[in-house]
Amino acid sequence: MTAQRADGGRPVGSAAWELLLPAASAPARSRGRSLASALRDAVRSGRLTAGTRLPASRELAADLGVSRGLITETYEQLTAEGYLRSGRGSGTWVGDAVRAASPAVRDLAPRDGHARVDFLPGLPDLSLFPRATWATAHRQVLAELPHHTLGYPDPRGLPRLRTVLADLLARRRGVVAEPERVIVCSGVAQATTLLALALRARGHTTIGVEDPGSPEHGTLLTAAGITPKGIAVDVEGVDVTALREQGVRAVVTTPAHQFPSGIAYSARRRAELLGWARSVDGLIVEDDYDGDFRYDRAPVGALQGLDPEHVAYTGSVSKSLAPGLRLGWLLVPDGLADEVVERKRVMDLGNPALDQELLAHFVERGDYDRQLRRCQRAYRERRDTLVTALHAHFPGVRVTGIAAGLHVIARLPGRWGPQDVFLARAAAAGVAVRPLADYGVSATGATAAEDGVHLVLGYAHLSPARITEGLRLLAGAVRASE
Amino acid sequence: MTAQRADGGRPVGSAAWELLLPAASAPARSRGRSLASALRDAVRSGRLTAGTRLPASRELAADLGVSRGLITETYEQLTAEGYLRSGRGSGTWVGDAVRAASPAVRDLAPRDGHARVDFLPGLPDLSLFPRATWATAHRQVLAELPHHTLGYPDPRGLPRLRTVLADLLARRRGVVAEPERVIVCSGVAQATTLLALALRARGHTTIGVEDPGSPEHGTLLTAAGITPKGIAVDVEGVDVTALREQGVRAVVTTPAHQFPSGIAYSARRRAELLGWARSVDGLIVEDDYDGDFRYDRAPVGALQGLDPEHVAYTGSVSKSLAPGLRLGWLLVPDGLADEVVERKRVMDLGNPALDQELLAHFVERGDYDRQLRRCQRAYRERRDTLVTALHAHFPGVRVTGIAAGLHVIARLPGRWGPQDVFLARAAAAGVAVRPLADYGVSATGATAAEDGVHLVLGYAHLSPARITEGLRLLAGAVRASE
Repeated sequence: MTAQRADGGRPVGSAAWELLLPAASAPARSRGRSLASALRDAVRSGRLTAGTRLPASRELAADLGVSRGLITETYEQLTAEGYLRSGRGSGTWVGDAVRAASPAVRDLAPRDGHARVDFLPGLPDLSLFPRATWATAHRQVLAELPHHTLGYPDPRGLPRLRTVLADLLARRRGVVAEPERVIVCSGVAQATTLLALALRARGHTTIGVEDPGSPEHGTLLTAAGITPKGIAVDVEGVDVTALREQGVRAVVTTPAHQFPSGIAYSARRRAELLGWARSVDGLIVEDDYDGDFRYDRAPVGALQGLDPEHVAYTGSVSKSLAPGLRLGWLLVPDGLADEVVERKRVMDLGNPALDQELLAHFVERGDYDRQLRRCQRAYRERRDTLVTALHAHFPGVRVTGIAAGLHVIARLPGRWGPQDVFLARAAAAGVAVRPLADYGVSATGATAAEDGVHLVLGYAHLSPARITEGLRLLAGAVRASE
Repeated sequence: MTAQRADGGRPVGSAAWELLLPAASAPARSRGRSLASALRDAVRSGRLTAGTRLPASRELAADLGVSRGLITETYEQLTAEGYLRSGRGSGTWVGDAVRAASPAVRDLAPRDGHARVDFLPGLPDLSLFPRATWATAHRQVLAELPHHTLGYPDPRGLPRLRTVLADLLARRRGVVAEPERVIVCSGVAQATTLLALALRARGHTTIGVEDPGSPEHGTLLTAAGITPKGIAVDVEGVDVTALREQGVRAVVTTPAHQFPSGIAYSARRRAELLGWARSVDGLIVEDDYDGDFRYDRAPVGALQGLDPEHVAYTGSVSKSLAPGLRLGWLLVPDGLADEVVERKRVMDLGNPALDQELLAHFVERGDYDRQLRRCQRAYRERRDTLVTALHAHFPGVRVTGIAAGLHVIARLPGRWGPQDVFLARAAAAGVAVRPLADYGVSATGATAAEDGVHLVLGYAHLSPARITEGLRLLAGAVRASE
């Protein structure tokens, strides 16, 4: 390789061209792309600085052992892109258009903790995902799918899935769900964001959220430009008087199994809440996040079924199949439908078509009902294991809330406190537990009088053995006074 | 079945209870759910009105031939839900909580036209989707996937896919794409919405869009609360002087293959545009919608590669695989990354995990490159067929723009006009074609001087035979003067 002298540019050592050698020996099909890529990198890295003159194409071709045409093309390519510039017959230089990327490095690894046993609430058991059935469904769906289904989807969702979901939700959750009312979305988070954006466009600036409640509701509303107002939850449900006092006209609720308190809204409170929504021409957002899982009786049907023009219903397959599927549904009052669908359209044009067909197929064949029964059995057993272990290790514990869902509230008597010491010792022993107070202001208020340790314990993602082990570790790490 | 008399309520004929008979003969496992469902429907439909007293559980059980316990449970269930109410030992009535759904009926059918041949631009050939390879990939991915991948995803995308895309985009499109910079999203529409929301939060109230250009860019910006400003496109690209005059600090562009004009931005214009972005501390959004398809030479590399801190790069698999997959990518300047990722999180928590793993697997195995070559061959042939047919049927036609992408601009001489008559005759013959003027103000301006018929013709989704047929139909329907 000959050393290059730039006439009119800076001198360049032969090393600068050596970096092109690996690219020059790439397979013929990708050689041009490799050369262009290596040359771009050399300019970007500053190894070739602005003003540097490139060797004549004939020379470089000889040095690299490639055709002159390939070098000419590469020069033209990078000139068209702005990395190089060329004068009339006067050679090719490195241009001055390139700016380096900021060197900031971001972590690619997932962000999660390293507890030995983590009682994080809200996670299903991912090992229950029916992989074999899902793979079979995928093959069958792909074999039968009309081509046009792979095109740009209807932002409302595929008609087949909407029809199937309408039937499923009417049957299992008592909702009013004509297919025309169902909007397929990526889950409850997207549904909440869609509704928040639509309500903000209608002039809502504040919306009520349950307190205690899921912090995620407030986060989503805030991101949509709406101020969340915490509304106290008592043993019957969200406080309707407080709703009126706050002056909101919409509220996000979890009536079938309030998160995190674990109550089901009473019939009286359901009626009061509907009365409030009608009187203010408002909207109740019903987050039915785990409404399929009740272990002592049939789940309470959705509030939406009582008044579909004042309740928006949201749900997903996140707890029944897997959160990673990102598939859910949203049923909105007729007056909000167009606005919500247009928001959905600009957000993502609609959910992936194959995933929708797959879920429709899965539900149609009865596989979804089977999966719910399977999860129901597994989660009921885990809840029983947890409650038994709690009573064994922490005498006097009160487990509150209905027998449902994926978590319990455990209230340990005062002698296990103070709570901060308890939590620190648990963490040191590798057991991650969260205090109820993490989930809202009134959670703190409500439990301030009765001291003790008040925990939210998720169990669905842990095997019975892990649950037992976690409670054993926890009990060994903490100590009751006296 | 005995007729029921409501004491203290209205009398109810026996017919009201007959509607429960089908539910009562449902399989034991679902009988309770069926009964509850039928009773809810009766209340909602008004067949059972508020105040109606229900039969005693013993009587109804006898009438329906089911256990009394089942009726008691059903009554309790619907009382808990608010459909019924009960007094102390004084029976059960239909409550007054229910309100009917609005009867509005929405169309479930997809909204599309019925042209015999539709030259709609922007659609790939969905029959080229590699179903067999995709199904195999799905099976392999599902067999190997760690459970945790099915959990709530990283909103930025799975590390495996981000790594694969970084390599793919650097190699094929010359972008600067460390995996840390790649954000997986559902496509260019979502990417544009994410960027628009992030820019609005930074105080941008107006953003430039190409004119002529894709109407979708303006729609997305408007939905994000930003006013789009049309910026004229000339033969070298978007007019940088006009950008300065409009006072915008961001612009959405299609540098590799401008839509719809079909030019590639010149090297000089690329440099000017980057200079502008740096001088206003602004952002160029690069929509690389069909950057993989160039038929006469290697595609011009992405603008983003020259200055990743002033260019946000967006692309997807919509043209190379299928729009229905809803999978794409976004590369943002480091300073915008956190904001964009948080917007992505509240929008949908991230893309479906299985789909991401599937695409990563597909790219890793070289299947994506094979698919691009396959599409490239097919689309090049279709473009050639279209151009040949245009010249045969419309002598004097000018086909402008580079040999790339999924559409051409055809400029028919004045004798084929006036354009509105031409379009009406085409439509009557069942051939859907769109005038260039549909895509912007300056499209009209630029072509006003030279009259004639200026069409945007998409060809990628049509087989060569359909293209030939479409042109034959078109030529038969319209007539040149003289």
